[in-house]
Amino acid sequence: MSKILLFGAGRSASSLIRYLGENAQKNNWEVTVADAQPELVLQKTREFPVLKSLVFDLADTEKTAEFVKETDIVISLLPPSLHIKVAKICLEHSKNLVTASYVSTEMQELHEQVKAKNLIFLNEIGLDPGIDHLSAMKIFDEIRQKNGKIISFKSFTGGLIAPESDDNPWNYKFTWNPQNVVLAGQATAKYLENEQFKYIPYSQLFRRLDTISVENYGEFDGYANRDSLSYQQIYGLTDTQTLLRGTLRKKGYCEAWNVFVQLGLTDNQTLISTQNLTNKSFLESFLPHYQHLSKQNIEDIFCEYLNLDKNADVFKKMVWLDIFKDIPLVFQNFLTEKATPAQILQHILEQKWQLAPTDKDMIVMQHQIIYEKNNQKYQITSDLVVLGEDSTHTAMAKTVGLPLGIATKLILENKINQKGVVLPITANIYEPILKELEEYKIQFKEKEHIL
Amino acid sequence: MSKILLFGAGRSASSLIRYLGENAQKNNWEVTVADAQPELVLQKTREFPVLKSLVFDLADTEKTAEFVKETDIVISLLPPSLHIKVAKICLEHSKNLVTASYVSTEMQELHEQVKAKNLIFLNEIGLDPGIDHLSAMKIFDEIRQKNGKIISFKSFTGGLIAPESDDNPWNYKFTWNPQNVVLAGQATAKYLENEQFKYIPYSQLFRRLDTISVENYGEFDGYANRDSLSYQQIYGLTDTQTLLRGTLRKKGYCEAWNVFVQLGLTDNQTLISTQNLTNKSFLESFLPHYQHLSKQNIEDIFCEYLNLDKNADVFKKMVWLDIFKDIPLVFQNFLTEKATPAQILQHILEQKWQLAPTDKDMIVMQHQIIYEKNNQKYQITSDLVVLGEDSTHTAMAKTVGLPLGIATKLILENKINQKGVVLPITANIYEPILKELEEYKIQFKEKEHIL
Repeated sequence: MSKILLFGAGRSASSLIRYLGENAQKNNWEVTVADAQPELVLQKTREFPVLKSLVFDLADTEKTAEFVKETDIVISLLPPSLHIKVAKICLEHSKNLVTASYVSTEMQELHEQVKAKNLIFLNEIGLDPGIDHLSAMKIFDEIRQKNGKIISFKSFTGGLIAPESDDNPWNYKFTWNPQNVVLAGQATAKYLENEQFKYIPYSQLFRRLDTISVENYGEFDGYANRDSLSYQQIYGLTDTQTLLRGTLRKKGYCEAWNVFVQLGLTDNQTLISTQNLTNKSFLESFLPHYQHLSKQNIEDIFCEYLNLDKNADVFKKMVWLDIFKDIPLVFQNFLTEKATPAQILQHILEQKWQLAPTDKDMIVMQHQIIYEKNNQKYQITSDLVVLGEDSTHTAMAKTVGLPLGIATKLILENKINQKGVVLPITANIYEPILKELEEYKIQFKEKEHIL
Repeated sequence: MSKILLFGAGRSASSLIRYLGENAQKNNWEVTVADAQPELVLQKTREFPVLKSLVFDLADTEKTAEFVKETDIVISLLPPSLHIKVAKICLEHSKNLVTASYVSTEMQELHEQVKAKNLIFLNEIGLDPGIDHLSAMKIFDEIRQKNGKIISFKSFTGGLIAPESDDNPWNYKFTWNPQNVVLAGQATAKYLENEQFKYIPYSQLFRRLDTISVENYGEFDGYANRDSLSYQQIYGLTDTQTLLRGTLRKKGYCEAWNVFVQLGLTDNQTLISTQNLTNKSFLESFLPHYQHLSKQNIEDIFCEYLNLDKNADVFKKMVWLDIFKDIPLVFQNFLTEKATPAQILQHILEQKWQLAPTDKDMIVMQHQIIYEKNNQKYQITSDLVVLGEDSTHTAMAKTVGLPLGIATKLILENKINQKGVVLPITANIYEPILKELEEYKIQFKEKEHIL
């Protein structure tokens, strides 16, 4: 019998817990689900009597270590900043670890120690990072096997709303952490294009778009992620002329979001007074006072300042958000006298972009690869679309949780033999995981044509 | 005999040292000029044998304290971050202190202790802050004495190039710290307009301009400073509907500077590779790659991306800076592999905006006050223009140094009797200083008209 200990039973854990529950008996696993919130653990394990539940407090290192001591492998779905604490406990008690998060510098520094203890700390095995690595490396390896040379790689991922639940002019709802959505992209993006380093400051990010088409799902805006270059070495793409990783939104979203960026509404540094604030007065604070407009009508000022037409889609999106209305801003979560514009904007958006219980989400990923072989260029487009089942087994929960679960199984079966702090970029990892994901309808559609 | 100790003999100290040298004998002062660089002290004191000179190292607290012990009053013209260390030594040895810098939180916290020791730490008594406080408070007090109610206060200051030395399309040269010019405004500006808080993010700052006219000197762009609201209480302007403090550039400068801001060239956070960098390749890294342009000509990409015409003044300013040319960037000051865009831009600008030895600088300040009395509104405009004498006694050195020197004299003569950490906002301070400044042709021109 193998013992699995999962830390974190939040929203993105649902499909992982179901996977562990459904596979425990046949694999002879003893699975324990642990969270700081008892009701969360109970709710998530209720369906699967085979699962054990545990309430724990990570601050209590000694007690946490006692639980770790009793297991064979730990999966951490805790907030990324907490992984390092779990990792150190795992290292001390010689337990393997799996996470869906980016490898932090602190985590990377453990590599030699983890290796010396003959352990694996497998990270970045969720959706993005995770499925993107698996699927991209599979394509790269296939091209290299036939002596092709990769010239360009662009890859985009988006957590979106499913078409059947897409009923607002933004074509967007909060299907994951709203704060991350509001603060997305707040650093200079770095990428490579035609062998040249390119930089996009935050204020230009939402106008420097790629248009991405996905069969049956229409067109999407793709904007650059913070640092596309960090994967150049890892992917073995040191000779590539173009390298861009980006985020997807439905077409038209970025032009409208850019209005918030330009106005300063996504600023998370400045504290402003929330006293007597309404949607309208909040917006007004970021607009100029025009002496020449006889009526100081906020819609007119807004359109003049941003050079927008009232018939424009962008303006219609804004009207739908009620930002021109004198709706008092009542803060439930942060009853503070001061807040940042980004916090206030998030609050306004949360009133409108809330996911209804029957709403379904959608994950879209697209890789675009250009390679050369015998002086001929080829383009590969590989698309993944995953739809949520319901508000529990969302596309996000499935695409984050299933790779974690499958990877854990493979480690327990000794099918992943790398040691140290490891990324899922080799065939022994991506092949079985991509294959099993197909059983859950998580499957890429690949097209290739001559350029 | 009174003993004066000046810390700092840099560029902005010249006119202060001359003032102290010329006034030492008749006032019975023993003046010591101290700096870390021996050649700087010698050069600055050479003309005035009455001045003593001293080389010191602020890191050697004990020795610095010994010098402080021997004096009656200390003037600190050191970099602002170092004032607090000098202040603590002054406090310990019960010496008065004068600075031209903004009161830091740490400095303010000394207030009660300074007061308890019957000392004065007079700060913000240079140009801006300094002369702006003196002249504004004088106008406010005059209005209040005749029972007027101040409705609006806007105040702008700029360190610029004198018309006779103004020979480039930017109408600008580095007359003071280049780094401060490149990084100017990198925070959300806060001000008050028509009783409403207004916020301007950095990306909008250089398009949200006031046009300021100064008789005989033409038109200027005025952009908002970081926080105009911090002086609302200090100036007693709690009922004012509009309150804005800003910075001046010659008309047209801000539109062109905004291009750098929009492109991301003023970003001081991101580190980029400087390897083989030229002016042109640096600029190219911040421009998109346009598939549809047959020739990838950088001027065409630049104009298309920024929606500029090649006949536009903005484009001509850019051409004059040689930013489209393949001039290798050779870094003398920072021979590093990586630098921020702002550091690289500063380097490019320093080749072109350098002050020639015969160039003269210019300080321009304008206050705009609207007040109401007996249901009638009045507008006061008060202008100050100061021209540099030469490259030593610049307008900046005079307007920073003379108020410091005069204030020091007044403290030694017991004509300033406030104790604690003090700002120059009361008549006993502003009246004698503004009066003596007139002897040096530092004099405001005031106009008033009915609105």
